[in-house]
Amino acid sequence: MSKVKVGVAGYGVIGQRLADGVALQGDMELAGIVDLSPTLALRALNESGMPYPLYLVDMARKPEFDAAGIPVAGSFDDLLEQVDVMLDAAPGGIGMKNKELYVKHNVKAIFQGGEKNEVADVFFHGYANYEKGIGQRFLKLTSCNTTGLIRAVDALDRAVGVEKIAITIIRRVADPGDTHRGLVDTLQVDKVPNHQAVDLMHIMPHVNATGFLVHTPVTHGHIISIVATPKKSLSKESTLDIFRAHPRIRVVKIADGFNSNTAFFRYARDLGKKRGDLYEIGVWEDCIGMSGDDVLFAINIPQESVTIPETVDGIRACMEMQTDRLEAVGLTNKYLDMKVRS
Amino acid sequence: MSKVKVGVAGYGVIGQRLADGVALQGDMELAGIVDLSPTLALRALNESGMPYPLYLVDMARKPEFDAAGIPVAGSFDDLLEQVDVMLDAAPGGIGMKNKELYVKHNVKAIFQGGEKNEVADVFFHGYANYEKGIGQRFLKLTSCNTTGLIRAVDALDRAVGVEKIAITIIRRVADPGDTHRGLVDTLQVDKVPNHQAVDLMHIMPHVNATGFLVHTPVTHGHIISIVATPKKSLSKESTLDIFRAHPRIRVVKIADGFNSNTAFFRYARDLGKKRGDLYEIGVWEDCIGMSGDDVLFAINIPQESVTIPETVDGIRACMEMQTDRLEAVGLTNKYLDMKVRS
Amino acid sequence: MSKVKVGVAGYGVIGQRLADGVALQGDMELAGIVDLSPTLALRALNESGMPYPLYLVDMARKPEFDAAGIPVAGSFDDLLEQVDVMLDAAPGGIGMKNKELYVKHNVKAIFQGGEKNEVADVFFHGYANYEKGIGQRFLKLTSCNTTGLIRAVDALDRAVGVEKIAITIIRRVADPGDTHRGLVDTLQVDKVPNHQAVDLMHIMPHVNATGFLVHTPVTHGHIISIVATPKKSLSKESTLDIFRAHPRIRVVKIADGFNSNTAFFRYARDLGKKRGDLYEIGVWEDCIGMSGDDVLFAINIPQESVTIPETVDGIRACMEMQTDRLEAVGLTNKYLDMKVRS
Amino acid sequence: MSKVKVGVAGYGVIGQRLADGVALQGDMELAGIVDLSPTLALRALNESGMPYPLYLVDMARKPEFDAAGIPVAGSFDDLLEQVDVMLDAAPGGIGMKNKELYVKHNVKAIFQGGEKNEVADVFFHGYANYEKGIGQRFLKLTSCNTTGLIRAVDALDRAVGVEKIAITIIRRVADPGDTHRGLVDTLQVDKVPNHQAVDLMHIMPHVNATGFLVHTPVTHGHIISIVATPKKSLSKESTLDIFRAHPRIRVVKIADGFNSNTAFFRYARDLGKKRGDLYEIGVWEDCIGMSGDDVLFAINIPQESVTIPETVDGIRACMEMQTDRLEAVGLTNKYLDMKVRS
Repeated sequence: MSKVKVGVAGYGVIGQRLADGVALQGDMELAGIVDLSPTLALRALNESGMPYPLYLVDMARKPEFDAAGIPVAGSFDDLLEQVDVMLDAAPGGIGMKNKELYVKHNVKAIFQGGEKNEVADVFFHGYANYEKGIGQRFLKLTSCNTTGLIRAVDALDRAVGVEKIAITIIRRVADPGDTHRGLVDTLQVDKVPNHQAVDLMHIMPHVNATGFLVHTPVTHGHIISIVATPKKSLSKESTLDIFRAHPRIRVVKIADGFNSNTAFFRYARDLGKKRGDLYEIGVWEDCIGMSGDDVLFAINIPQESVTIPETVDGIRACMEMQTDRLEAVGLTNKYLDMKVRS
Repeated sequence: MSKVKVGVAGYGVIGQRLADGVALQGDMELAGIVDLSPTLALRALNESGMPYPLYLVDMARKPEFDAAGIPVAGSFDDLLEQVDVMLDAAPGGIGMKNKELYVKHNVKAIFQGGEKNEVADVFFHGYANYEKGIGQRFLKLTSCNTTGLIRAVDALDRAVGVEKIAITIIRRVADPGDTHRGLVDTLQVDKVPNHQAVDLMHIMPHVNATGFLVHTPVTHGHIISIVATPKKSLSKESTLDIFRAHPRIRVVKIADGFNSNTAFFRYARDLGKKRGDLYEIGVWEDCIGMSGDDVLFAINIPQESVTIPETVDGIRACMEMQTDRLEAVGLTNKYLDMKVRS
Repeated sequence: MSKVKVGVAGYGVIGQRLADGVALQGDMELAGIVDLSPTLALRALNESGMPYPLYLVDMARKPEFDAAGIPVAGSFDDLLEQVDVMLDAAPGGIGMKNKELYVKHNVKAIFQGGEKNEVADVFFHGYANYEKGIGQRFLKLTSCNTTGLIRAVDALDRAVGVEKIAITIIRRVADPGDTHRGLVDTLQVDKVPNHQAVDLMHIMPHVNATGFLVHTPVTHGHIISIVATPKKSLSKESTLDIFRAHPRIRVVKIADGFNSNTAFFRYARDLGKKRGDLYEIGVWEDCIGMSGDDVLFAINIPQESVTIPETVDGIRACMEMQTDRLEAVGLTNKYLDMKVRS
Repeated sequence: MSKVKVGVAGYGVIGQRLADGVALQGDMELAGIVDLSPTLALRALNESGMPYPLYLVDMARKPEFDAAGIPVAGSFDDLLEQVDVMLDAAPGGIGMKNKELYVKHNVKAIFQGGEKNEVADVFFHGYANYEKGIGQRFLKLTSCNTTGLIRAVDALDRAVGVEKIAITIIRRVADPGDTHRGLVDTLQVDKVPNHQAVDLMHIMPHVNATGFLVHTPVTHGHIISIVATPKKSLSKESTLDIFRAHPRIRVVKIADGFNSNTAFFRYARDLGKKRGDLYEIGVWEDCIGMSGDDVLFAINIPQESVTIPETVDGIRACMEMQTDRLEAVGLTNKYLDMKVRS
């Protein structure tokens, strides 16, 4: 069986990781990436020996790449002639324009959270609504916070049912190396409800959700505090057992050194993970408590890499590679080395 | 009637503000402050013309003060001979030692949140348990986070009853100018429950409380997100009305420019408040939501100054200046210019 | 003699401080301020009782001010009818547009550093080139970093002559409360030479200057490290003596607690200075060294307030209030409480 | 020829990287590491499959490692029986104690910059004074800032001679993931001269050096601004050519995206370097200028990894593996993939 051919549009923080994530899938082929200008990310790719070919949004800018010594394989159209599906990680709003090209070339596409919902047929999460994406033409992934949040809430919901959640998002405001956005010595607040709660209700309409969000001047992972009202009784230990059984959730302890969002980053660096990336969200064993029948717990979301697995799931769904949800996410997990560890 | 004579031990972040706060009370007299070494705070006091006299913990160190040109009025014992009550804002642990002096000189004392509960007869909050402090010898104030949190929860509780709360504290990790503590680009987490939830239950034993705390690298105010389960029905608007009627709570809007913890600081600077300090906690009108019957809201806590009013209340209680709670806090509010504004 | 009437356009970080600084001058009258929308700064002014009247850029937006309960005295034109000189602290680029109004109403104007040099007849610094501003119609002040830097270099230059300087600017990237700009966990670099070195040579053409600039994620004061080559011999002590004799320079010691840029802010807060502002730049006694015949020293620049005195000097120059440089700056210093302290 | 056997004491930020760096040397063998408690770093090593054996400082704590599932190969003494040389990266001060063991077991040792100079026979830098380390028993490496600084100054000095330097260090205050140290919104200053200037004069006594240091709240690389007085004439271009010819220096451009210290980290992450580490210091092409005959330039120092190559050079020197300086550093460079790139 021939491999599904995948392209990536936009080689930024997410696009780089999508490309590497697809390249790890045994049943997919990364046909190439497309970008606009000779960014630092492309210079690094070039110093790495160009493991996959580069196509250009605008061939008139090829001389800039020549000057930087970065080989160019062809145009955006050239790439689109070869692929079955595009992962669109272009800056917010550009995906809507790119969609015209995807329609013209008759390729499917999966957009990231920065695009408007209207860009796609389905608002998608690999674990929560895989079935809705099967055979669809255009999917849009949930954003990084929402993707991680839904992983945890979906796990509880499938186990005992979740009636409602009230969340507090402590959001990292920039990625490492960003110089175009940031905050200094301030905690900026957003209106209640935040879009993540609203988005969760879109994917999981049977759960009532609201939430507050605070932007914080850090770069290494969002933290979400969640007060969940289960339909059946939960204890601290039974909640943790549900999370421990999930291949995309790591249950950790402060006492072992996981005392911050950055501890996950440091741990992944020490593991030798590329870029220090983890795909898993974290749950702290010592940050869980009961509030009457509600459970309070906290998750850590590695914002640069968390959406990669669910996006790969999206390829499986829209390309009808697997029709069974658990078979699909299981293959993604296998190729990305995510498994139940405890 | 002669004024109650008050001394302040420890002229750090809290001690400076206690001294200024007492000096504003029409029915109290600030007899003096006591400290150890010629700190920057004392150099500033000296450049300001020494509005109140300075006493020394250790007269052997007077030459250091002479060298800095800072006038010294006498020893710690000299101050204790004059006062009715001491506000102890010495570094954590020192208050316990100072207590021996207070016992010896037969003066009352109010300790700050950094001391252990055993130092005092009563764990005190001006609004929540004023009556318990009346006539007592040694009080200990709640910490800054707990003081602000109890203000809000007590307001709801007196209005409709509060069954339980689950809180998320987004804690500022240092004060402006601190160089002895801090975090860089990391969100550090604490075990659940945090001490603030436990302390609230000590003061308000009929409320069930738990909470999660994240330390953040900022200096201008803690933010607490609170999910409260009321005993009687609450709406967003009725909750805000309860807060609007509280002289120590400011209800503000993001749309008006209060979009962060630092906005409060900036506003107070622009008001011409000394040091840019506000005594009030803030509540955001646009950061409130219902989660079923529970209400989710967020408060801002100016950590440097929030405990001043409740500490002054403590003087009123332990010195039996007022026996009526609302009369007592009302006087404190009047002298500190806190009032219902909306 | 009637007082010179002054208006302020733009009530942001600088405009607020210009207004307050002018209001302190015994020989000037603050006629009013003009702004666009009911900002947090204007809400604070209103809570303070409107010590000076507010005029509007656009009277069509008066309903927004009515809704906020902020009294409006009239239009921009109304203000321009009353004043002799405008201090323009509007956002960069707007000053150029406002200039047309100033020409039309025949008022003089002083622009801040954010405008292009072409906006003005003279690029001005109160201490370094006061004479060039006398009687001129349009002045432009140096930026905050350049203003502070020139103070120090001009002091050395008048004493012993300065041949060249090489500077390193460690720039604070946002003001307290800013949420529209910032950096997180990164030191961003600018090309050599930075504009401050170039601007200094514009004002002091006989000095050769170059420099490097690093943006840092802090809010409380730029620090500049300066390697200066004097024309006559200097020692560490003689350099410090020159600075000590300058009313707009504070020479401080790390050992006294001035161990950071924020220490100055904290000290000013403790002094009770409005908004915690200092007008003086700082020089550290313990941060000076000789590199052969060159002297290495470091200055602290309170970015929010440092340009106020030199701007007030500009009023004195362009309005021909004083023709003698030292008389002019001396009056400004007197009204702003700056004096030789050691 | 049998390989030199190397052990590493202390598996923290530096120790981890020393171990990995030694493991890459074709002519050395990493015999093992030694540490005290089951840290996060050791848990990551274990999840990675224990590529090298772990020995314990205190066998009484073996049960803690058993509980964590981390295999233990033996005691510190067991390791010392096998090795020719120890790289001591224990916390500052512990190295002095460990030295007794090294003496007892007759192994050589190289200490890191945190130890006092007295611990060693030679204060060592691979490029600047390799010859002094040959055959010595105990070496101490320069600190991270000094190591990078000397690389650049030594390169200039060997080319044209350096008379004096005046430096400004913009120091990162914590490493990614640190929660035990940090600063928030403040630039803390140190006395002039900083220890790095003093240390450079120790290694390069013919150069006069002084410097100022500012601690900044970031984690990704120190930046040093250097004003160097050469003995022979230098231009911007000739200076850059000297740096371009150095295998441990990368000359980069802001225009290519290297606009910050963090850009180097991001680039190394994208290159797939373990932990996102670079061994090279960076020099910005666009951050160089002439100040008369002096040259002003800036370097970036990756504090976590910069001392690894010079420490490996130290093994070559003390073990007399190579007696020629350039042959020695060349081998280190080859195994660590550092080369002239432009």
